[in-house]
Amino acid sequence: MANKEIPYKIYLEEDEMPKAWYNLRADMKVKPAPLLNPATHEPASIDMLSQVFCRELAEQELNVTDAYIEIPEEIRSFYKMYRPSPLVRAYCLEKKLGTPAKIYYKFEGNNTSGSHKLNSAIAQAYYAKKQGLKGVTTETGAGQWGTALSMACSYFDLDCKVYMVKVSYEQKPFRREVMRTYGADVTPSPSMTTEVGKKILEAHPGTTGSLGCAISEAVEYAVSHEGYRYVLGSVLNQVLLHQSVIGLETQTALKKYDIKPDIIIGCAGGGSNLGGLISPFAGEVLRGEADYKFIAVEPASCPSLTRGKYAYDFCDTGMICPLAKMYTLGSNYIPAPNHAGGLRYHGMSTVLSELHDQGILDAVSYKQTEVFEAAEMFARVEGILPAPESSHAIKGAIEQALRCKETGEEKTIVFGLTGTGYFDLAGYAKYNDGELENYVPTDEELAESLAKLPKMD
Amino acid sequence: MANKEIPYKIYLEEDEMPKAWYNLRADMKVKPAPLLNPATHEPASIDMLSQVFCRELAEQELNVTDAYIEIPEEIRSFYKMYRPSPLVRAYCLEKKLGTPAKIYYKFEGNNTSGSHKLNSAIAQAYYAKKQGLKGVTTETGAGQWGTALSMACSYFDLDCKVYMVKVSYEQKPFRREVMRTYGADVTPSPSMTTEVGKKILEAHPGTTGSLGCAISEAVEYAVSHEGYRYVLGSVLNQVLLHQSVIGLETQTALKKYDIKPDIIIGCAGGGSNLGGLISPFAGEVLRGEADYKFIAVEPASCPSLTRGKYAYDFCDTGMICPLAKMYTLGSNYIPAPNHAGGLRYHGMSTVLSELHDQGILDAVSYKQTEVFEAAEMFARVEGILPAPESSHAIKGAIEQALRCKETGEEKTIVFGLTGTGYFDLAGYAKYNDGELENYVPTDEELAESLAKLPKMD
Repeated sequence: MANKEIPYKIYLEEDEMPKAWYNLRADMKVKPAPLLNPATHEPASIDMLSQVFCRELAEQELNVTDAYIEIPEEIRSFYKMYRPSPLVRAYCLEKKLGTPAKIYYKFEGNNTSGSHKLNSAIAQAYYAKKQGLKGVTTETGAGQWGTALSMACSYFDLDCKVYMVKVSYEQKPFRREVMRTYGADVTPSPSMTTEVGKKILEAHPGTTGSLGCAISEAVEYAVSHEGYRYVLGSVLNQVLLHQSVIGLETQTALKKYDIKPDIIIGCAGGGSNLGGLISPFAGEVLRGEADYKFIAVEPASCPSLTRGKYAYDFCDTGMICPLAKMYTLGSNYIPAPNHAGGLRYHGMSTVLSELHDQGILDAVSYKQTEVFEAAEMFARVEGILPAPESSHAIKGAIEQALRCKETGEEKTIVFGLTGTGYFDLAGYAKYNDGELENYVPTDEELAESLAKLPKMD
Repeated sequence: MANKEIPYKIYLEEDEMPKAWYNLRADMKVKPAPLLNPATHEPASIDMLSQVFCRELAEQELNVTDAYIEIPEEIRSFYKMYRPSPLVRAYCLEKKLGTPAKIYYKFEGNNTSGSHKLNSAIAQAYYAKKQGLKGVTTETGAGQWGTALSMACSYFDLDCKVYMVKVSYEQKPFRREVMRTYGADVTPSPSMTTEVGKKILEAHPGTTGSLGCAISEAVEYAVSHEGYRYVLGSVLNQVLLHQSVIGLETQTALKKYDIKPDIIIGCAGGGSNLGGLISPFAGEVLRGEADYKFIAVEPASCPSLTRGKYAYDFCDTGMICPLAKMYTLGSNYIPAPNHAGGLRYHGMSTVLSELHDQGILDAVSYKQTEVFEAAEMFARVEGILPAPESSHAIKGAIEQALRCKETGEEKTIVFGLTGTGYFDLAGYAKYNDGELENYVPTDEELAESLAKLPKMD
């Protein structure tokens, strides 16, 4: 009866939008392991991080005590241009699957960056502007983060220098054009514009690039140019903090309609969306107020949580960033170039890694053809063409819903639909043509990559 | 004070969405001239139209008496997947322009077809399914209509055969991929699959195609194949009827916040969006209840309202469709291939043509470089990368807002932002590279094209 009244899309009012981000680390009894200086293996200090990041973002990065951090007014205004994002009841998908499960998705794709990445991009650009910087540098893989940052920098009139993983740069020429329209400077990575890029090109002339490598280039540019800092779209604590806006809105929307989720699912590359979505709910679990099943869905070709090792590793191929303790495949792991499904980072957010280690967060992986199958089905019944990244969560939700069909359980499933696939049509074309191949690394490949983890004391 | 409380985005509740479409023709004292049989010049009958269109759509096409036509439940359910669309207060654009004007836009781009076209596509697919047809055929220019129809046909499990104007087919390969993902069959037009296509290719081997030509091919396929009908995304009365959902939602949203618009602006190619947006407001004007200024914005390269002739003309290059009295540039008029701004149809909806003739609807035209300039400015401040088509309305709204800045008038401007430009990056790339050229037909060119209008008694 109550369900009868649930609309297809739940939109919050503007005054119901969060006024503070939620910092899950404050509620974690066992905190994520600290970032370490790569040279000394000492915990990274604010001063050290401030050479790479804006000061205030470095503070957020290390803040494990404040549960709430106020969202500055300027950022809240920007959020209002494209948020609140809808929490959608997937009536048509439920019907198609014939499941008694109730499926909801938090849709973050209704903005020009096409994804949730804008939530953190605008925050990071704001703090850069506030600090009086000239500009910021970053890397981008699928291009969602680069686009988001371009939009944010354009809004605050900051220079924006983007290193784009070469394979994406070539597969997604129109992504670059969007970034240019927003005034960004886009360079395919690895490039000859940095020392680390030159080294990598020398060692691997035919490389299609990797996020880890693009990060190294962006960091090098930032630390070697006055008035620049580096910003990152995932993995970091600060990013998960900003992305908590997704989970907070979801929580408010569910409460508004008296809906209690059983399972919360997100795709996971570096963990920004999943971390943001589950943060407030994981907080409830950690405080003993509720119980939810959390599932991270990752690609079988880049399975950091499901097949990686929980250890200190470099965040970038160039080994110039702080060390982070995370589930990792090794910082020089690169998924095969036929991988079109995004989520290609070698490691996982330290917060999510710790939650996984504590048994609070489950993880599964799927091959890309089954992910694209789920994407196509979803597009046809729900009308939204999803990003390949987001489609991992769709696949995960469908699997859970089909289990409910078997057992007859009326579980409530919430998943994060991070974005749209309008710039991923090269991948869809391959899928439509039956040319999409699956890649799953062998145990030997992973062992080889993991053998190069930094030696810790 | 009241304005203080207006949110960035006004969303209606589901139960505030319209339950019936509004048929402006019922309130027009002087009705649009009837469609004529191209052979006999007799008014087109239901039976004649039913050979081309679904029966119920043919009835809607000729219905000039019923002010409201109920929206079937199945269509209303589909609408709920992506509607209501937001009415957005362009706070950032106002600030950027420094205008005292208040600017609102009704944003129709938040769905995978990327535009308002889905509003009519789902209606037309529904009636085709209801009639027990196998499938439908259509043409598409920029690809928005073809994508929308593919989505609608996939939803109702209908065959979908799309003739895509060759220049768009080549400029927008990814559009085709979206249509394929939704199961449509896409052919570049002119093609060798129809008699009319063969004739045109013989006469103009290097042609880049036109909407008029693609229409002829789609109609020929439909009338020569059992179980198929033709559907069209603009120009027709039935399409304006379905698109009235845009204006009705806008009207409700404005009333909800006690906002009275002064100027209502839309881009105009065939007139589907503009007609849908202004219909309920034009009804108020025709009934003497209110007074608004309506402005149609068209490309200088395809200026049917501003430089065309109000006369009976063919709707298609192949001259097999009924004749319509409209502002036209001649059915064989084709804008130069360098035109990237969409809105390339040679004629204008008969309803809008009649409103223009009665002095109720104004019209202006802009060159594409100034339209892309407006698009870029809008994208940077409002965060949405607009379709080139939609950007004509943006340009029109900016011009009106700048006039208010000169005069100090606090006018309220509402415009239709029909869609997003995610598949128009080839056009943006040209603009970014400074390679976008303007094309404005000479008087001689137009005279030559208009000389071929059908001879009426």
